[in-house]
Amino acid sequence: MYIVIMAGGSGTRFWPLSRTKSPKQLMSVFGGRSMLQRTVERVLPLSPKKIIIVTNALQAEETRRQMADYRALPIEVIAEPVGRNTAPAIALAAAIIALEEPEATMVVLPADHFIRDESGFCAVINKAASAAAGGALVTLGIEPTRPETGYGYIEAGAAKDGASQVLRFVEKPVLEKALEFLAAGNFYWNSGMFIWKTSAINRELALHMPQLAAAFAAISASEPLQAQIDRIYPDIQSESIDYGVMEQAADVKVIAASFGWSDVGSWSALPEVIDADNNGNVAINCDELISIDSTNSLVYGSGKVAALIGVDGLIVVDTPDAILVCRQDRAQDVKKIVETLQRSGRMEYL
Amino acid sequence: MYIVIMAGGSGTRFWPLSRTKSPKQLMSVFGGRSMLQRTVERVLPLSPKKIIIVTNALQAEETRRQMADYRALPIEVIAEPVGRNTAPAIALAAAIIALEEPEATMVVLPADHFIRDESGFCAVINKAASAAAGGALVTLGIEPTRPETGYGYIEAGAAKDGASQVLRFVEKPVLEKALEFLAAGNFYWNSGMFIWKTSAINRELALHMPQLAAAFAAISASEPLQAQIDRIYPDIQSESIDYGVMEQAADVKVIAASFGWSDVGSWSALPEVIDADNNGNVAINCDELISIDSTNSLVYGSGKVAALIGVDGLIVVDTPDAILVCRQDRAQDVKKIVETLQRSGRMEYL
Repeated sequence: MYIVIMAGGSGTRFWPLSRTKSPKQLMSVFGGRSMLQRTVERVLPLSPKKIIIVTNALQAEETRRQMADYRALPIEVIAEPVGRNTAPAIALAAAIIALEEPEATMVVLPADHFIRDESGFCAVINKAASAAAGGALVTLGIEPTRPETGYGYIEAGAAKDGASQVLRFVEKPVLEKALEFLAAGNFYWNSGMFIWKTSAINRELALHMPQLAAAFAAISASEPLQAQIDRIYPDIQSESIDYGVMEQAADVKVIAASFGWSDVGSWSALPEVIDADNNGNVAINCDELISIDSTNSLVYGSGKVAALIGVDGLIVVDTPDAILVCRQDRAQDVKKIVETLQRSGRMEYL
Repeated sequence: MYIVIMAGGSGTRFWPLSRTKSPKQLMSVFGGRSMLQRTVERVLPLSPKKIIIVTNALQAEETRRQMADYRALPIEVIAEPVGRNTAPAIALAAAIIALEEPEATMVVLPADHFIRDESGFCAVINKAASAAAGGALVTLGIEPTRPETGYGYIEAGAAKDGASQVLRFVEKPVLEKALEFLAAGNFYWNSGMFIWKTSAINRELALHMPQLAAAFAAISASEPLQAQIDRIYPDIQSESIDYGVMEQAADVKVIAASFGWSDVGSWSALPEVIDADNNGNVAINCDELISIDSTNSLVYGSGKVAALIGVDGLIVVDTPDAILVCRQDRAQDVKKIVETLQRSGRMEYL
């Protein structure tokens, strides 16, 4: 089994903690280890033959620094010179694995997701690997817990051995549709986690994205890998694996997963995945949180004592050079702060 | 004219900026110079013969450090070994001045008040000095702008040459009373600013606080002053000048003042005395304040960029080791944070 971790994201919704050179997956969102480090540790029980981390040039240095903690593991960090969405990153990883072991099972995971039940996660991956043994492309579908309009959905057909044929992928729905999906019971959130045989994804890439497949077919073991990547990338087109392959392929299966998942899309997702105190407050990286009549608030500190008085539903983030105070239901607007800083050329804060 | 600045306060309502060793008067509440430094600079147009700063042992070092900026001025810093409220501090200063010039005019000012119109302030002091020439004790009464229940009031009788005989001092009133006072038109806020001849206050101290007067009567120029103070203080009783003298004396006058005054009693007072932006936001010591749909909030930073999203009426204070987020109308409860820290022995934050 080869694990491919997609770590090239450059999210701005966790500003001021996330920065261009240190996006969400490299951040210590929960305190302690970064989301990427947690993702690596989460897959260790699967005894992967290799862990391939696909990042980008800007973040490669910090990614390698964080991976230095795992010197004993077979980890390979690959830097895309430019971002081209998920299809090229996956095609690249599949080409690399094919050089070593073309029939290996390949597990593709985002670097920045939260998973509560880690052993449940590994069990689902093993189940998905079995379902993929016959050549199907398998995706993990998260059992929806609310009519979320921020995620894509997967409609599942009849199940067999715990895997269902995918009937269709649905883009982010309006609330009415999301409520229908939730009531129907056979719709899942599209997690962006995939399991397939390397030969299967390479076959489907050749079929549905022949230009991309051809670009990476030339990759060889006889020349340094990074040089080949840097030569190939500029000319390839940006595309998501969902649109480029998953929605086109004939044999796509979904495995239902309920291991406590969040894509941690913004600061307001943290209180959902971190246990709060009796007042609903969460303190991360604070020496101590002193709360007077304050509820449902998150303080992400820089080791200081934090005090809240009479506030509710706030996000407070303190970093060495920036401070953010945001109402929880406005967490999506954090990216507007980043845009404002970009417009005014304050690159030191980006 | 001798200026006496009462700088021994140890307010806790500006935590986390104010600390035991750096209370409000030594803080850069408005950014830039401290309140004590502003008080010193404010009186310079009065050409004082000497400025006596009465502080306490804990704060003496920082007080002297701040006064080093004014080496050319005749400033004397005196440290009380223990706090004994305002009457002993004033009696001490009066005793010191009497050694040099017993008939000098003495102006007593708190170190931690905000005054908007500085030349208006000096004009009122000069007017008060004239009113005090005949031996009266003169106090400045602030023309009230709201039915404030947090201040004491002074009821004034008929005015003569701009000075009125004080009919009575009134403790902090309930709202009903405060509304009456405001409507009556002859009630003023008790500012704690006094002007009198040194001989007059010494006469009244001898009359109404004979023990205190006797204790300081022994002060002489032949022994180092601090040694005498350290010997005298432990045995004297704590008392305010208002209760000990002002409410007892026969000839007390009040001069109406309207130079834009605030005692800056808590964080919530700052937006009243600092010009806000169009959204009612005030940023102090911030590199930049970026506000999205945020109003009537104060950010006291430590040089960082600050971002507010969707919040109203907040106080945000960031210091190197602590962060406070407080609703404006709860600013009085900042002292509860200090009490909590005291109870849990977190002296490093006090």
